[in-house]
Amino acid sequence: MTHRIESQRKLREICRIAARVFYERGYDGASMQEIAKAVGLTKAGLYHHVQSKDRLLFEIMNYGMDILQENVLDKVQAITDPREKLRQTIMGHIDLIVRARDMEITVILHENRSLKGKLREKINARKRDYILFLREMIVRVQGKARDAVRVPPEVATFALLGMINWLYQWYRPSGPISQAELARSYIDFFFRGLLGDKERNVWRQ
Amino acid sequence: MTHRIESQRKLREICRIAARVFYERGYDGASMQEIAKAVGLTKAGLYHHVQSKDRLLFEIMNYGMDILQENVLDKVQAITDPREKLRQTIMGHIDLIVRARDMEITVILHENRSLKGKLREKINARKRDYILFLREMIVRVQGKARDAVRVPPEVATFALLGMINWLYQWYRPSGPISQAELARSYIDFFFRGLLGDKERNVWRQ
Repeated sequence: MTHRIESQRKLREICRIAARVFYERGYDGASMQEIAKAVGLTKAGLYHHVQSKDRLLFEIMNYGMDILQENVLDKVQAITDPREKLRQTIMGHIDLIVRARDMEITVILHENRSLKGKLREKINARKRDYILFLREMIVRVQGKARDAVRVPPEVATFALLGMINWLYQWYRPSGPISQAELARSYIDFFFRGLLGDKERNVWRQ
Repeated sequence: MTHRIESQRKLREICRIAARVFYERGYDGASMQEIAKAVGLTKAGLYHHVQSKDRLLFEIMNYGMDILQENVLDKVQAITDPREKLRQTIMGHIDLIVRARDMEITVILHENRSLKGKLREKINARKRDYILFLREMIVRVQGKARDAVRVPPEVATFALLGMINWLYQWYRPSGPISQAELARSYIDFFFRGLLGDKERNVWRQ
């Protein structure tokens, strides 16, 4: 068990460093030799942890989805009110995207054309689960509203994902908009767009 | 003049084909030799049109921005009402992103880490102009509203860009949501999020 934890810790360290190398040199441009060097391993040592470059890319993406699971989804699991659950999910997801520490992982997770076949399908399945989770909450929030506006839940789900995932393209925590202000504005904007003022105000009371 | 038009037509054809090659093989993975072959030119013939691989990537992105200018911005130029102008800009931008024909160009325009230095700066300046144009319209729309909700205009601008630009990740015109329904839902959602119900309804009458 201790061995397994140590092995996972090492794999995650490799993922973080390899993500930076892929980010800087491109997936095709970076060699396993370079990645091994950046991690401080021999090439054979790196292959002991991951069997191939494809697999390494998969592990980075899988790690990105693990972070989402651990830092966001596990934390909101016990919340029963769908609006509060959705609100906290949005805050957690924003926090993940704007954290400089995981920026390279975010980029690699979103620009995922290099992954092929079964490994790609596995990552897409995890992404799909998250999309379905968001959609389900949006449906429940819409269902609770007495006078719901009809935005198709798929469209609302992807609009929300676009708003949040696009943040890595422009938002810098050191800029003029604080993360707290960003999260507040996004949540206000999203729920107003979804439900209109009346429902939103009822909810606030 | 005719020569210049012919030369631009050829450059655009090269851009479209090269975008597909970069999309499939990655920027680092694709060689100028391969691109020349795909276009039906010798390598020397390709270099007659574009001086380097960097320059070719720049020309593809620049072409992407030209398409936005010609198909969206030029067409809304004469509209004076900011809400109508913004509405038509959103519709035009959505149309651009979901058109399968230019999908590769969209991807390359958004995943632009491979471009460096001055060429990157030139593309970013064009993107910035578009962002400022959207922001200015949002400010004017907010200013006209009698009871405006306070979403910071920067945040609303990037939320909108995220909603639209993210479409290439998930939306397929052949799927269950028609483009007309998508555009209508996005516009409803965005203006409601920005202004609330009351203003939106006033506007609709």
